[in-house]
Amino acid sequence: MREVAVIGVGIHKWGELWDMSIRDMFVTAARNAMDDAGVDHIDSMYIGCMSGGLFAAQEHLASVMADYLGVTPAAAARVETACASAGLAVRLGWMEVMSGLSDIVLVGGVEKMTDITGEEATFALSTAADTEYEGYNGITFPGLYAMMARAHMEKYGTTLEQLSQVAVKNHANGALNPEAQYPFPVTLETVMNSTMVAEPLRLLHCSPITDGAAAVILCPLKLAREKFKDHPLVVITGSGHATDTIALHSREDITTIKAARISAEKAYKMAGVGPADIDFAEVHDCFTIAEIMVTEALGFFEPGKGGPAVEAGETSREGSKPINTSGGLKSKGHPVGATGAAQIIEVTRQLRGEAGKRQLDNPRRGLAQNMGGSGGSSLVHILEVR
Amino acid sequence: MREVAVIGVGIHKWGELWDMSIRDMFVTAARNAMDDAGVDHIDSMYIGCMSGGLFAAQEHLASVMADYLGVTPAAAARVETACASAGLAVRLGWMEVMSGLSDIVLVGGVEKMTDITGEEATFALSTAADTEYEGYNGITFPGLYAMMARAHMEKYGTTLEQLSQVAVKNHANGALNPEAQYPFPVTLETVMNSTMVAEPLRLLHCSPITDGAAAVILCPLKLAREKFKDHPLVVITGSGHATDTIALHSREDITTIKAARISAEKAYKMAGVGPADIDFAEVHDCFTIAEIMVTEALGFFEPGKGGPAVEAGETSREGSKPINTSGGLKSKGHPVGATGAAQIIEVTRQLRGEAGKRQLDNPRRGLAQNMGGSGGSSLVHILEVR
Repeated sequence: MREVAVIGVGIHKWGELWDMSIRDMFVTAARNAMDDAGVDHIDSMYIGCMSGGLFAAQEHLASVMADYLGVTPAAAARVETACASAGLAVRLGWMEVMSGLSDIVLVGGVEKMTDITGEEATFALSTAADTEYEGYNGITFPGLYAMMARAHMEKYGTTLEQLSQVAVKNHANGALNPEAQYPFPVTLETVMNSTMVAEPLRLLHCSPITDGAAAVILCPLKLAREKFKDHPLVVITGSGHATDTIALHSREDITTIKAARISAEKAYKMAGVGPADIDFAEVHDCFTIAEIMVTEALGFFEPGKGGPAVEAGETSREGSKPINTSGGLKSKGHPVGATGAAQIIEVTRQLRGEAGKRQLDNPRRGLAQNMGGSGGSSLVHILEVR
Repeated sequence: MREVAVIGVGIHKWGELWDMSIRDMFVTAARNAMDDAGVDHIDSMYIGCMSGGLFAAQEHLASVMADYLGVTPAAAARVETACASAGLAVRLGWMEVMSGLSDIVLVGGVEKMTDITGEEATFALSTAADTEYEGYNGITFPGLYAMMARAHMEKYGTTLEQLSQVAVKNHANGALNPEAQYPFPVTLETVMNSTMVAEPLRLLHCSPITDGAAAVILCPLKLAREKFKDHPLVVITGSGHATDTIALHSREDITTIKAARISAEKAYKMAGVGPADIDFAEVHDCFTIAEIMVTEALGFFEPGKGGPAVEAGETSREGSKPINTSGGLKSKGHPVGATGAAQIIEVTRQLRGEAGKRQLDNPRRGLAQNMGGSGGSSLVHILEVR
């Protein structure tokens, strides 16, 4: 197994981008990543996208993006695990480089979500849940996470203030991220008084609908040392991938995200570290309750202690375990197929010392956790600076 | 790099299956493959599917299928390159086993195409082409391949009789395949008088709309030798993957499938063989012109000689280079996300001597070519019996 380095990252400002097509966004992010790495070709490419069909009437993104990026006949694959699609792309690119099959692999993701109506988008997102047993009975994603939030509040005493503090913290971070969709702070009062979506979740407990793309260039560490010296070297030391039941009603316990726990255990084992060794993390806060449940599943806090940890400031940039310094899905935005790659970008930038006004103090090891659906899939990657 | 063996294959009768859901079909095929291999668990899974969203309102098949196959928390990924999605699944599973990351990997594909109207299906399929520059201007897949057929006829003198003989041959083979959607012979006259679809292509020059799934189990050759002794051992010795422009109008030459040629060259190089060393092949006959163009791109026949080769019987079961002994997409059916895995199944069965009434005489090396869109993607695998 070869060690795999991240040698380039590329993104663009996310938002409601009516002047950019799905190919414009991905090619922009990919070119930015290639420029950052200083590479003029790639051997292979993995593109995360949840639903090119329902959101943008365009499948076969492998060929579309290889064509418009100008890299044909390079191998290209579109990969999907709902909102964890780009995390999957990172894992498969890491596998291809690790295996020795290819040297320079581009991994990333894209989603074009605002060219359809909000109703259509809600339907498209619902296909990440169990369509036959959940979607067709009327449940939507805010509803699924609202049930998890209710159960977590009931079992552990998690409070609405704690759920709201996640949004306050992430918007405080996102205000320092020029690529974020909503780069402004929000107050606790604003969050708690925002429009009700699915009780107890209000508008500002939910991540937004976003157009965006993100891309990362991977290569063997040895080659990175020889050829690419501009940036501090960031290495993927752990990769974990796990599934759980698609439907929430089939789970043993809906107050925990089992796939997040198992994927983290696999990544920790590969990297030879534990939760205490992680300096900071980007986690999948599609709803603020998700951030709390995931930080527990990753072993950062005991079950039920995720809420109090946020309230005590432990997950802020100045805390013991900074979470979502990028602004998270909440403030940075959540183009579902791209999110997992953007997490890797934030972790890489923090490790390189290139995170601007939100830079942490000399972090050495970061983690990215990307979730599909209501926890039916989870991908975890651990990155370290060498 | 570890050598990778095919130790199990599973399929079911394809057709218009209104009593089976997308999960029923995939789980049926996967269980059949696991039974054939004699394995009771898998480490990881790749599911090819072109458009779970547009055809079946179900994305996140990784979690759906891991759940209903009873293999959570195993890693699972849905992968897509349009109609080459299952070929991509085979390649990624091969990569995972080859790399040493996992031992037992299930690869396959599924598509549920008949639960929507024909018009909706035509639209869904069109998203494998360039939606902005082709689909929105009204072209459909029969139209794209009709243009290729016209150009091939003009440049090389390929005839309508030759296009029709592909269908006659593939239906003759498919009549011997109990899992085929249309297991009956057709005459040249019937093909040439069938309903016009897109001039010069008539109904019986086109593959059908199909519900179906297929699955294959891969493991390291060494482990296969130690643990799985029931079947002759079939090994993947070459894998090639290439892209081309998504839109037909961007190609240098529409009388050849460049991605098929390049993916074949990669696979030949890896396997250390050439076209003359291939005993038989399954190729992507989504339209009969495609089989002719692909057999030329694979190097089996000179450019322009694919049509005469069919007419001379060289690609029949008794010919020098049997093509599509399964019946091909034309007679066996074409559930787009599953086709690439079904090709691997036919090649494996022929190499094992388990192809029933369509069995070739002791073949030792077969090839499978799976195409995405109008040739924007191609995957080629070479399999040998040990």
